[in-house]
Amino acid sequence: MAKPTMPQGTRDFSAETVRKRNYIFSTIKNIFEIYGFEPLETPAMENLDTLVGKYGEEGDKLMFKILNNGISNPKNIEKSKAGFEKVLEGKSSSDLTERALKYDLTIPFARYVAMNHGKLVFPYRRYQVQPVWRGDNPQKGRYREFTQCDADVVGSNSLLNEVELALIYHDVFKQLKITGYELRINSRKILSALAEVCDEEAKVVAITTAIDKLDKIGMDRVKEELRQKELNEDQVEVIESYLTMNNAASTFGNTEKITFLKDFFSDSPTGLQGIKELEFLISHLPPENNISIDLTLARGLNYYTGIIFEVKAPAEVNIGSIGGGGRYDDLTGLFDVPGIPGVGISFGVDRIYDVMSELNLFPKEVQEGTKVIFFNMGDIESNFSFGIMQQLRNKGISCELYHEFTKINKQFNYAEKKHIAYAIIIGSKEIEQNYCLVKDLKTGLQEVVVFDRLADYFAASPPSKGGI
Amino acid sequence: MAKPTMPQGTRDFSAETVRKRNYIFSTIKNIFEIYGFEPLETPAMENLDTLVGKYGEEGDKLMFKILNNGISNPKNIEKSKAGFEKVLEGKSSSDLTERALKYDLTIPFARYVAMNHGKLVFPYRRYQVQPVWRGDNPQKGRYREFTQCDADVVGSNSLLNEVELALIYHDVFKQLKITGYELRINSRKILSALAEVCDEEAKVVAITTAIDKLDKIGMDRVKEELRQKELNEDQVEVIESYLTMNNAASTFGNTEKITFLKDFFSDSPTGLQGIKELEFLISHLPPENNISIDLTLARGLNYYTGIIFEVKAPAEVNIGSIGGGGRYDDLTGLFDVPGIPGVGISFGVDRIYDVMSELNLFPKEVQEGTKVIFFNMGDIESNFSFGIMQQLRNKGISCELYHEFTKINKQFNYAEKKHIAYAIIIGSKEIEQNYCLVKDLKTGLQEVVVFDRLADYFAASPPSKGGI
Repeated sequence: MAKPTMPQGTRDFSAETVRKRNYIFSTIKNIFEIYGFEPLETPAMENLDTLVGKYGEEGDKLMFKILNNGISNPKNIEKSKAGFEKVLEGKSSSDLTERALKYDLTIPFARYVAMNHGKLVFPYRRYQVQPVWRGDNPQKGRYREFTQCDADVVGSNSLLNEVELALIYHDVFKQLKITGYELRINSRKILSALAEVCDEEAKVVAITTAIDKLDKIGMDRVKEELRQKELNEDQVEVIESYLTMNNAASTFGNTEKITFLKDFFSDSPTGLQGIKELEFLISHLPPENNISIDLTLARGLNYYTGIIFEVKAPAEVNIGSIGGGGRYDDLTGLFDVPGIPGVGISFGVDRIYDVMSELNLFPKEVQEGTKVIFFNMGDIESNFSFGIMQQLRNKGISCELYHEFTKINKQFNYAEKKHIAYAIIIGSKEIEQNYCLVKDLKTGLQEVVVFDRLADYFAASPPSKGGI
Repeated sequence: MAKPTMPQGTRDFSAETVRKRNYIFSTIKNIFEIYGFEPLETPAMENLDTLVGKYGEEGDKLMFKILNNGISNPKNIEKSKAGFEKVLEGKSSSDLTERALKYDLTIPFARYVAMNHGKLVFPYRRYQVQPVWRGDNPQKGRYREFTQCDADVVGSNSLLNEVELALIYHDVFKQLKITGYELRINSRKILSALAEVCDEEAKVVAITTAIDKLDKIGMDRVKEELRQKELNEDQVEVIESYLTMNNAASTFGNTEKITFLKDFFSDSPTGLQGIKELEFLISHLPPENNISIDLTLARGLNYYTGIIFEVKAPAEVNIGSIGGGGRYDDLTGLFDVPGIPGVGISFGVDRIYDVMSELNLFPKEVQEGTKVIFFNMGDIESNFSFGIMQQLRNKGISCELYHEFTKINKQFNYAEKKHIAYAIIIGSKEIEQNYCLVKDLKTGLQEVVVFDRLADYFAASPPSKGGI
C-alpha cells in the first residue's frame, strides 16, 4: 500500500512529548490527590443515548459515532437500513450506531454517578484525566482527540469546595512555575440579577452572551447587540454602567467591585446572594491566588448556577483560557437521579503545554531517557559489560548496551542523538584491571571508575525518572 | 430518560481499581525505562486503510469503525450511500467509515515507524501502554476495551534484545511479587525445521497449529489431526518423537532438550540456527529467570520468524498466558518501508491484575487515598482547621475538611467509608491551647499534637502517594 497517513486532527506523541505531557498530568493529579480527590476512569465509548442531545445540535453533529458491527448480518439488515435512512435525514440512530466516543468527561461522569449513586460516598470528590473526541475542524491548538482533566465535588453545597478548587489552580500553576496567570471569577447569580434589574429575566442568556463579548468587540457593539435583542435604552444604560464598572478593573480591585455590586443589586436577593458567595471565596483565598472578579465572565455552559471560574494564561503568551469551571445544581437529573449538586474545574492541558513550551518551563530532568550507554567493544567485552549493566539497572539506573560491535563513531553518534548523558567503555584491558572509563557526553570529560563504585557514581547524579 | 447503561464489554474503573492498575502500569513502565525504552502514544483512531486487512477476516469484522461525520450533507450523500451498499455486502468502505479504533498497538506502531523512519534513531526502543478496542463477545476476562502494554526494539538483529526482553519479564514479575510464573520459549526456526525434516515445508502452519494443541487435546488427537492434514505415518512418527521429548519436560531440563534437538535437527541448517539462538538466550539469563524451552509453543501471529516467548501465570491460578512476543523480520513492509526487523513483548495487564487479586499481591499503600480528615466543628473552628490543613497539604500530605458542620457520627462514618487513616479534631478549646486531637481511625488511639508538630507527625508515617 501507499505511504500511510493518520486521521486529520490526531497526533502521535513521541517520547519527548509524552514525557512533558506526563509531567503536567502527574503534577495536576498529585495536587488533586493531596486535596482528597480520587481517580475515576470511564470507557472511550458510551451508549449513543447517553450522549446524544446533551451538547446541543452542534455537539450531536461533531460526535464520533461507531458503526454497529454485524450490519451486513441478515438478521440486522432491515434495522441497519432503517437506521441509515434516519442518519441521512440528519438524525442519530442506534440502529446504525449504538455507541459513540465520549465528547467530554462531564456526561460520562454524570452517567457513572447516576448508575452508582447508591454505593458512592458523598460528597464524592473525583478527578478524571482522559481523552475525548470531537469532529471539529482541526486548527492550531484544536484537535479531534484531546485530553481533558477535570475535578468535581458532588453532593455538597458548601462553598469551601469552591475555595479548594481555586486553591488547586494556584497550587498546580505554582508547581508548574506558571506565574502571572489570572483566576477570574463571577457568579451566575449576579448575571441573573442583572437580567432581573433590567426586568428582563427571560433574556438572561441573550444578555450574558452579549456582555461576554465585551473584551473582543468593545462597548459600542455590545450595546448594539443588546438593542438587537430588543432591550430598550434604559436597560442598555443599566448594563453599560455595570460593564463600565467592570472595565475599570485596572484601577478597581475586588473590594471596590464588591462595594459597587452591593449598591447596584441592593434590591435583588439573588444578586446579594451571589455577592456574598464571591466575598466568601475571596476572603478565604491568600492574595497570591491572583483572583479577580470579572463581571463579564459568563462561560457557555448553561448548567452553571453559582460561582464560575476561568483561568487566563499569563499575558505574555497569547493563548487565552487555560482552565475553567463552576457550580451546578443538578448533575444527574438528566439520568433520572435528581438532587446532586456540585462544582468542578477543568485544566486545558494542551494549552498549558503550549504556555510551558513558549515560556520554556519544562525542567530538564523531564526529558531524561537512557542515562548510561555501554559501548559494544566486541563479543567478550559486551558479555562482560552486560553483567555490569544489569547491576546498574537493578539499582534503578537506566542503561543500554549498544546492540552490535561496530565503529566507535557510530556508537557515539547514536548516544548523542538519543541525548544519553554518559558512555561507559569496557575493553579487554579494563576487564583485566577491574575498572572502566566513564565519559560525560556533554562535557567530554572522562573518568576512571572501578566497577564496585559505578552504581554510587551514578546514584550521586540525579536519578533517572520512571515512566509515570 | 431511563436509567443509563454502558456499552457491553466496557468498564468504569473506580479509584481502587485505577490505583491498582496504575501500580501495575507504573511498575512495568519504570522497568521499560530502566532498560532504555522510550514511550510512544498513538491516537485511538487510525485511518481505515491502515487497519483493514491486517488482522485477517475476523479482525476486520471485530474492528470498531467510525461513521463519517456529515453523512447527510448533500455533497456527501451519494458517496455515503455507495459506502453503505458496500458495507451491506460485508466489506469496509472509507466512503462510510474513514476511520476505525485501533485494534492492537503493533500496526499503529508500524504505521508510526513507516511515517517517521527518516528521523528515528535506530535501533528504536519504544514502549506503548494504551487501550485498544475489539468487538469480541464479552466474557470473563475478555473486554471490548482493554489495555495493551508492549515493548519492541526495531532496527536490530542482535539477540541481546531477546535477552533483555526476557530479563524485563523477570524484573517486572519480581517487582510485582508474582513468583512461580514460567517463561516458555521456542523458535519459529525450529518449527520450520520440523516441517523440513518431515519434507512438508509447505505444511508448517498446519503442523504448528496441531502441535500447539498438545496441552489441551493430548497426543492421540494431535496425531489424528496431523493425519487429517495428510501427513503419512512416518511423518506423524517423527512429530510424535519430537513431542514426546518435549512432554518429558518434568524430567528433562533445557540442557537435555538442546542435546536432543541438536541430534534431531543435525541435518537442518535452519533447525541448528534456531537451536543456537535458544542456547544464546538461555546462556545469557540467570537461572531464576524461570525459562524453559517448550517445543510445542507456536503463537498465532504469522509474522514471527525467530525466538518466540510466552509467559504462563503461576500454576496455582488458572489463568493461562499473561504475556508473549517474539522476533519478526519485517515490521513495516506492509507500509512500503522494507528492511526493519525487530523483536517485541507484551504484558497481559488485565490478566496480571486478576493474578495479583487472586494471590493478594497488591501492597496496602497502593490503596491509600486521603490520609487525614479534619472534622468540621462549626464555622470558626473549620475556618481555623482550613488554615492548618493547607499547611499539611503544602507538605504533600493529602487531607480533607468535612464539608459541613454536622453530627460527629456522620463525619466518622464518612471517614470510615473512605478508609481515611486519621481524623483531626479542632474545637474552640484546641484553638485556644494551640494543639489538636489526632485520632488513628484504625486503632482508635488518640493523641494530642501541637499544631507546629503536625506535619512531622504525619511525615513520619508512610507518605501518601501521588496520582501517577
